[in-house]
Amino acid sequence: MMCPVLKQHVKLACVQFSSTADKIFNVSEARAGVIEAANAGARIVVLPECFNAPYDMALFPQYAEILTPSPPSKDQSSTYHALSTLAKDTNVYLIGGSIPEFEPLTGKYYNTTLAFGPDGAGLGSHRKTHLFDIDIENKMTFRESDVLSPGDKLTIVELPDYGTVGLGICYDVRFPEPAMIAARLGVFALIYPSAFNSTTGALHWEVLARSRALDNQVYVALCSQALPPTGYPAWGHSIITDPNGQVMVMANREKAIVYAELDSEAIGQHRRQIPTSNQRRFDLYPDISQLCTKGLGLD
Amino acid sequence: MMCPVLKQHVKLACVQFSSTADKIFNVSEARAGVIEAANAGARIVVLPECFNAPYDMALFPQYAEILTPSPPSKDQSSTYHALSTLAKDTNVYLIGGSIPEFEPLTGKYYNTTLAFGPDGAGLGSHRKTHLFDIDIENKMTFRESDVLSPGDKLTIVELPDYGTVGLGICYDVRFPEPAMIAARLGVFALIYPSAFNSTTGALHWEVLARSRALDNQVYVALCSQALPPTGYPAWGHSIITDPNGQVMVMANREKAIVYAELDSEAIGQHRRQIPTSNQRRFDLYPDISQLCTKGLGLD
Repeated sequence: MMCPVLKQHVKLACVQFSSTADKIFNVSEARAGVIEAANAGARIVVLPECFNAPYDMALFPQYAEILTPSPPSKDQSSTYHALSTLAKDTNVYLIGGSIPEFEPLTGKYYNTTLAFGPDGAGLGSHRKTHLFDIDIENKMTFRESDVLSPGDKLTIVELPDYGTVGLGICYDVRFPEPAMIAARLGVFALIYPSAFNSTTGALHWEVLARSRALDNQVYVALCSQALPPTGYPAWGHSIITDPNGQVMVMANREKAIVYAELDSEAIGQHRRQIPTSNQRRFDLYPDISQLCTKGLGLD
Repeated sequence: MMCPVLKQHVKLACVQFSSTADKIFNVSEARAGVIEAANAGARIVVLPECFNAPYDMALFPQYAEILTPSPPSKDQSSTYHALSTLAKDTNVYLIGGSIPEFEPLTGKYYNTTLAFGPDGAGLGSHRKTHLFDIDIENKMTFRESDVLSPGDKLTIVELPDYGTVGLGICYDVRFPEPAMIAARLGVFALIYPSAFNSTTGALHWEVLARSRALDNQVYVALCSQALPPTGYPAWGHSIITDPNGQVMVMANREKAIVYAELDSEAIGQHRRQIPTSNQRRFDLYPDISQLCTKGLGLD
């Protein structure tokens, strides 16, 4: 088990808002939220899943962008450029929610997170690896795989001022392995831009955030879309949990920014008090972080 | 992923009571509780951790028994025999909490669960594999490893009328791997005789039960000691969670028996609705149940 590195205190913010059909408005909303969070002292700011487009598979292709750091042209990603500029303007590490991505070489669509440093440089990206295909009769049916392709790697991103974080998107949080692997490779936080809904949010949102944090003794942040007037009934409740599995802060379903101060000493303290991170019986079961030779992208 | 087998509905009971310094009284309490549960229709009955002795490491050696199915003599296990007889008398599958065990060949002590079938035959045993060594300043310090040795295997037990269950003891529940391995090998429930305390119980009891169930889409039962007048401040709150991570029933801290009906169709339904059990990306991370060549004791 690598010791997690969090080099100094850092304030993390989740900017919760609902996306509309208007991409320019959505990106403006994100910009306003990140500026507000930065002015409040946040240095790591997280946006929601699919923040620049409606969360609707039928509309995904029409909103999808080709990802490129170049300034935008008609066919290129204006959102990539907007996020890069926003991170630089506000001097924050920006975990840019997720956006619909089109990969022109393969013709595939992805649900993709982009991370930027305070200089505006891209630090890494994550394509959702577990697609949201569920069917709860009369309550919630959704099939991302009708349109999307899954990513082919797990993602850890280095934020040079602070340490490393594990990235996933929404449904990825239901799978313990990527979280376990990231934690054992030393991340101080797991960050999931998300958009659970009224059904799955009420059932599983908080317990997933708390258990990923507790099992791995790291911080966990889930940044949700707010509940919109119409369309996908996002759960909201953006949440940050501490390395002891306790809720530090949680929004309701409306537009909001939630903050928490992440503290290196807190990770150490909890790991000394209940030292599960050092008590694992790798003589009885494997350490999956040692076996993950394929698929781990340490961008 | 093997399909979990639960051949028919079955009522499971957790018999929550507090152990005293009087072993004969403790075993009588267990007997009364199991009889009551069986009369109420339970066919799988679970007792608490260390139910026949005070949960106090200093006293462990004086209460420890050599485990043997033979009728008791001065040096042999009277509790083994009492549990076997009790299972047969009540026609239940009995997960006999845990008891202090002395292994005469090595001179080691273990915290050990014994499982019996309705014919009184031993079905398997589990020695606690993760010892409870924690140090939360001014709140709870405990060091099982001062006295105990850890078990050297994970444990799955077959209950012929119903299917297989994974067994762990208390602190074992903090470690996701044994639960994941048991679930992928087809158990329908994870059962943990336990004795959390006022500090760790309030923080982690419910979230651990719920997340082990949700992550693995199986039933989970944690059977606790009740809060005694003096001594170890057991958390109580014996809990049974469903394969969707929801609390079916939970006790308070007093003596109680809680029941839940386990239903094969419910496992299938939840696995169809949110099919995480079939969506894992074993191309990106290993299936640890396939790698667990050592340490898995399918008794």
